[in-house]
Amino acid sequence: MSNVRVGIVGPTGYAGMELVRLVVGHPRMRLVYLAGSGARTGALDAHLPHLHVLADAMPLVEALDVEKAANVCDLVFVALPSGESGRVAWQIWQAGRQHGVKVIDLSGDLRLPADAYEAWYGKAAVPQEAISEACYGLPERHRESIRGASLVANPGCYATACALAVLPLGDLLADVEGPIVFDAKSGVTGAGRAPKEHLHLGELANDAYPYRVGQHQHTPEIEQALGGRVRVLLTTQLLPVPRGILVCAYIAIPPDAAPMVYDRYASFCEDEPFVRLLVYGEMPHIKAVNGTNECHLAVRWDDRSRLLQVFTAIDNLGKGAAGQAVQNANLMFGWPEDEGLRLVPLWM
Amino acid sequence: MSNVRVGIVGPTGYAGMELVRLVVGHPRMRLVYLAGSGARTGALDAHLPHLHVLADAMPLVEALDVEKAANVCDLVFVALPSGESGRVAWQIWQAGRQHGVKVIDLSGDLRLPADAYEAWYGKAAVPQEAISEACYGLPERHRESIRGASLVANPGCYATACALAVLPLGDLLADVEGPIVFDAKSGVTGAGRAPKEHLHLGELANDAYPYRVGQHQHTPEIEQALGGRVRVLLTTQLLPVPRGILVCAYIAIPPDAAPMVYDRYASFCEDEPFVRLLVYGEMPHIKAVNGTNECHLAVRWDDRSRLLQVFTAIDNLGKGAAGQAVQNANLMFGWPEDEGLRLVPLWM
Amino acid sequence: MSNVRVGIVGPTGYAGMELVRLVVGHPRMRLVYLAGSGARTGALDAHLPHLHVLADAMPLVEALDVEKAANVCDLVFVALPSGESGRVAWQIWQAGRQHGVKVIDLSGDLRLPADAYEAWYGKAAVPQEAISEACYGLPERHRESIRGASLVANPGCYATACALAVLPLGDLLADVEGPIVFDAKSGVTGAGRAPKEHLHLGELANDAYPYRVGQHQHTPEIEQALGGRVRVLLTTQLLPVPRGILVCAYIAIPPDAAPMVYDRYASFCEDEPFVRLLVYGEMPHIKAVNGTNECHLAVRWDDRSRLLQVFTAIDNLGKGAAGQAVQNANLMFGWPEDEGLRLVPLWM
Amino acid sequence: MSNVRVGIVGPTGYAGMELVRLVVGHPRMRLVYLAGSGARTGALDAHLPHLHVLADAMPLVEALDVEKAANVCDLVFVALPSGESGRVAWQIWQAGRQHGVKVIDLSGDLRLPADAYEAWYGKAAVPQEAISEACYGLPERHRESIRGASLVANPGCYATACALAVLPLGDLLADVEGPIVFDAKSGVTGAGRAPKEHLHLGELANDAYPYRVGQHQHTPEIEQALGGRVRVLLTTQLLPVPRGILVCAYIAIPPDAAPMVYDRYASFCEDEPFVRLLVYGEMPHIKAVNGTNECHLAVRWDDRSRLLQVFTAIDNLGKGAAGQAVQNANLMFGWPEDEGLRLVPLWM
Repeated sequence: MSNVRVGIVGPTGYAGMELVRLVVGHPRMRLVYLAGSGARTGALDAHLPHLHVLADAMPLVEALDVEKAANVCDLVFVALPSGESGRVAWQIWQAGRQHGVKVIDLSGDLRLPADAYEAWYGKAAVPQEAISEACYGLPERHRESIRGASLVANPGCYATACALAVLPLGDLLADVEGPIVFDAKSGVTGAGRAPKEHLHLGELANDAYPYRVGQHQHTPEIEQALGGRVRVLLTTQLLPVPRGILVCAYIAIPPDAAPMVYDRYASFCEDEPFVRLLVYGEMPHIKAVNGTNECHLAVRWDDRSRLLQVFTAIDNLGKGAAGQAVQNANLMFGWPEDEGLRLVPLWM
Repeated sequence: MSNVRVGIVGPTGYAGMELVRLVVGHPRMRLVYLAGSGARTGALDAHLPHLHVLADAMPLVEALDVEKAANVCDLVFVALPSGESGRVAWQIWQAGRQHGVKVIDLSGDLRLPADAYEAWYGKAAVPQEAISEACYGLPERHRESIRGASLVANPGCYATACALAVLPLGDLLADVEGPIVFDAKSGVTGAGRAPKEHLHLGELANDAYPYRVGQHQHTPEIEQALGGRVRVLLTTQLLPVPRGILVCAYIAIPPDAAPMVYDRYASFCEDEPFVRLLVYGEMPHIKAVNGTNECHLAVRWDDRSRLLQVFTAIDNLGKGAAGQAVQNANLMFGWPEDEGLRLVPLWM
Repeated sequence: MSNVRVGIVGPTGYAGMELVRLVVGHPRMRLVYLAGSGARTGALDAHLPHLHVLADAMPLVEALDVEKAANVCDLVFVALPSGESGRVAWQIWQAGRQHGVKVIDLSGDLRLPADAYEAWYGKAAVPQEAISEACYGLPERHRESIRGASLVANPGCYATACALAVLPLGDLLADVEGPIVFDAKSGVTGAGRAPKEHLHLGELANDAYPYRVGQHQHTPEIEQALGGRVRVLLTTQLLPVPRGILVCAYIAIPPDAAPMVYDRYASFCEDEPFVRLLVYGEMPHIKAVNGTNECHLAVRWDDRSRLLQVFTAIDNLGKGAAGQAVQNANLMFGWPEDEGLRLVPLWM
Repeated sequence: MSNVRVGIVGPTGYAGMELVRLVVGHPRMRLVYLAGSGARTGALDAHLPHLHVLADAMPLVEALDVEKAANVCDLVFVALPSGESGRVAWQIWQAGRQHGVKVIDLSGDLRLPADAYEAWYGKAAVPQEAISEACYGLPERHRESIRGASLVANPGCYATACALAVLPLGDLLADVEGPIVFDAKSGVTGAGRAPKEHLHLGELANDAYPYRVGQHQHTPEIEQALGGRVRVLLTTQLLPVPRGILVCAYIAIPPDAAPMVYDRYASFCEDEPFVRLLVYGEMPHIKAVNGTNECHLAVRWDDRSRLLQVFTAIDNLGKGAAGQAVQNANLMFGWPEDEGLRLVPLWM
């Protein structure tokens, strides 16, 4: 009998809001603790009117108390801004270590070695000890380690969509020539919920544009997730939609490997509950995965240019954040990996 | 133990697509039959890529066979275009009458007397016998009749949002002076999925405009749902969003009744599982109910103009179509009214 | 030969940005002065990349210097936030009084008597002397006074769209029974460019909702523009689009006046360069006027409810702000009223 | 004194609508002839309400009469669907050859050799004679030939945005290793105005996805525009916005050429009226060029991957269709190249 007590730190940010939705719908989780780092305390639905429907079932949002979080919860998701989140996750993990609290941090703070973090994020890293303790939570690559972990660094949204496009190559990755180019586009919730001029609907509606090209902090995370064997160029672009990431990867595999690639991908996806290979010729739509933990994936060999193209679509808040965090929790607790995640999306 | 066998006729239209999602997630329903009236047969997810996740669990879409529908199903939802849908629903109901098949028609074909139907829809009505057999499926008004019905005419989306804004007035309705004005706005899925120039994203994006003002076919349906006691003016407007209906009702109640109105609404909503009165001053958002069967409702007395304002928001495909159809099915089968409908919306 | 020197105070807000576009395209205006109240100084196109095309033709943005504005300009548009804008306009007008500078303030600060302003805006008013000096700049009502004015209070966007729906009634207005209801919807640029959470694309996309209902500060402005003869109820609602206002007015004229109403509107519009009566049955689209100074207007008598319906669409930044300001300038300088305003909109 | 008589064939399609707007605003053109190929005849603004403002100034739309088009016009733009447009353009050109009519075809029908056309478009080509007569109208590459031409094949939208990203490389193009990858995204008007299910706002809103990858018919057009010296891989993707094309080109130039690339681009753009190199680090926005004939271009050397990235943004209906057609007309008539094209975009 499992009825795990769950806390969410940062429930009014975009990833946190999605976590609330998933935790409340998860048959083995019970939401017992909500904590904000800022001024938004009290009834959650006072800030988020779509949650009126859950009003009676939810704890009030409190000012964060690390000890309490560690004590009243078996599992804590921390979804605060980078620079703050990892530190809080580490504190909760330390405070609850003795009774075995499990902590999943959704920020970038525990994903990279401290020096790489500081170089790409431009902020002070959390103690290297915390980073070393944390298991990188990409189940398609680190499933077994995650099962045994009590502190998980949940992957970034772009990093997930890019890594999943390439991991199925397996040992063919060693033969890739030159860099892998990821041309990636994201909905606006990837930028967080804090109001900024460029996220104003009056600015972003009808627009689309690249930003932080080649300098996005998920770049080293992708390289690390691919085993450090390839250089990647990540082009990040903003789309005028709330959710969704679409990635086109361009990969120079040896042409003689081309005939076997689709089968490689098929065999990889066959074992993965959330990575779905589309039939040859079909292309992923961000709408087809929004609200879910799915990754839709298409493979195409372009014979004219002799390039392999791989397309992935995920929900940046689903497989790119909250959904993957729940998938990691399922692994950490030994539950079916898709528990609470058999979600059917809205198409429109 | 209940495991009701369910069929959906018209699963690739917008209401039908939403029915698929709800039926698949309903713990007492089993989707056994899908039938299209047109050319889209075969695997449903070949037409609707967001349903890949359900692919293994779903029957293939067949060309409609009335006898089969009536025989393999305990419950059939019919969601075809007006003019076709009611006729099919009636045929299935007749074919399955002996073994008690239950049929819910989501079109306008069974909602109005034949003469009113022909006047407002400009098409031939189904036999009056079918119309007379059908129970109008607005649970907040006809709950008991629905429990005993085997053929239900599911209400229109605008009609639902407008009727729910006024029904809580109860006997105060008799004192309303003059007509009730409903200024209503709808997302584009209310217009159906068939491609038309004015529904092209290149046309409708960034636009908003009134259409069929004072001539919308839901006008007589609203008047009928309000007991025929008031004249209504329905102003229908198109919004550049996929889903949602927002209604502002302007009602001239006697000023001395104003102090008791909020309590009336509160007491009405207390007993209703899907009509939620917002705290005074809060206003409904279409996003807060999209994907659900909820109706959010706000009441405001405007002392300067001496008018009562009531605001409702529903999902035109939820409480305005598929959600309400499932609510009606729950009543018809004697299940908890919110079975399969405890849905948490996405906010973004 | 006219080559009027023009200044714009607040060129990086939404109304100011639109003024830049219109002034640069105006054959009798020369943009000589740009001043911000905040930190955005330097090249305007560094903040607004769509203005790269104008980069060589434009003055740099300076920190505001009232004396300079008054001295180097013949005409100054002030488009700062309410509470600041009217004060600056008044200072510039005073400083340039001797050489006859003309000033148009786009905020609400000079439109209402000080007591009404303070009641509805909840801020301290500018000196009543300034308010009394300012002419309310609705050309369709105060054309002659505007021609003689040197300080103009440019009307509000909602106020313009509402007043234009009713003014053509002329003396029939005296016979209207009860209040006039304006159900009004606006694009997001009406809320200003300062970033706020509810204007974030992640929040507002796919949503629509009422706000500040019955309490919007344009309410008394409309009543004043209609001569103080009627009570109005203004329902303001936010649409997930950048631009545009759509108003539906519900007016209880005596039924025996109904047959003559269309002609009244036709005769009013015939003389107005920017108010266009649509053919009976056609409805206004916000897209059809965006980027222009046009007001599209439709009239409909609803015989069932015995209500007159009038629909108007304007661009909140065009006829609702910058366009009307230029129209006022044309009147103040004795130019053709549509000089620089013969604009063809983009449809898509 | 020039007052060239202009005809537009296909004025109710997206490119045709934009041509109307540009021709009406062009100081040397007079719109004298409008012809549709289908049922939409009569007043143009009856179909396009944003053109009410032009109603008095415009000819009625007639059923196409090739002889008349050739006789009453000095210049005819043909903007019909591919497969029909080139044939009509050729007919008009032949009919008006003697008095020197100039014809610009906006379709793909005259851009490619007949065999390549048939292979990529899957339709019968127009006579090779027509194709050979037509000059490919990319001014940045064929300016001198266009000046002397009387029949011009206006380039495709994707082809323009891709070619302009690479042409400034000049002779460095010979040193490019491997294929050039163009990851391209387009607004929905690029798909034409005919209603189709996947263009329905209910489908496309909030979505983004690749289509016809590696098989888009602009692929050979780009290779031809680049002199046939490189292989290109064109990835075409649909964005949920009305207008705009954003292209990211990935180009493997020799690393030792990298230091000189920005200057190459700067020197190319200096002489071009419509190609604007952004300052290093700034990225193009589709909103910044919509409604104009501008191409915004950014260059970035990625030292980690040793790839050159070039980003271009154009309006698919501007520099990608109607704007470029007017630019070509300006060249053909010997007018200033930017006549009628000094357009300031709306930002929001």
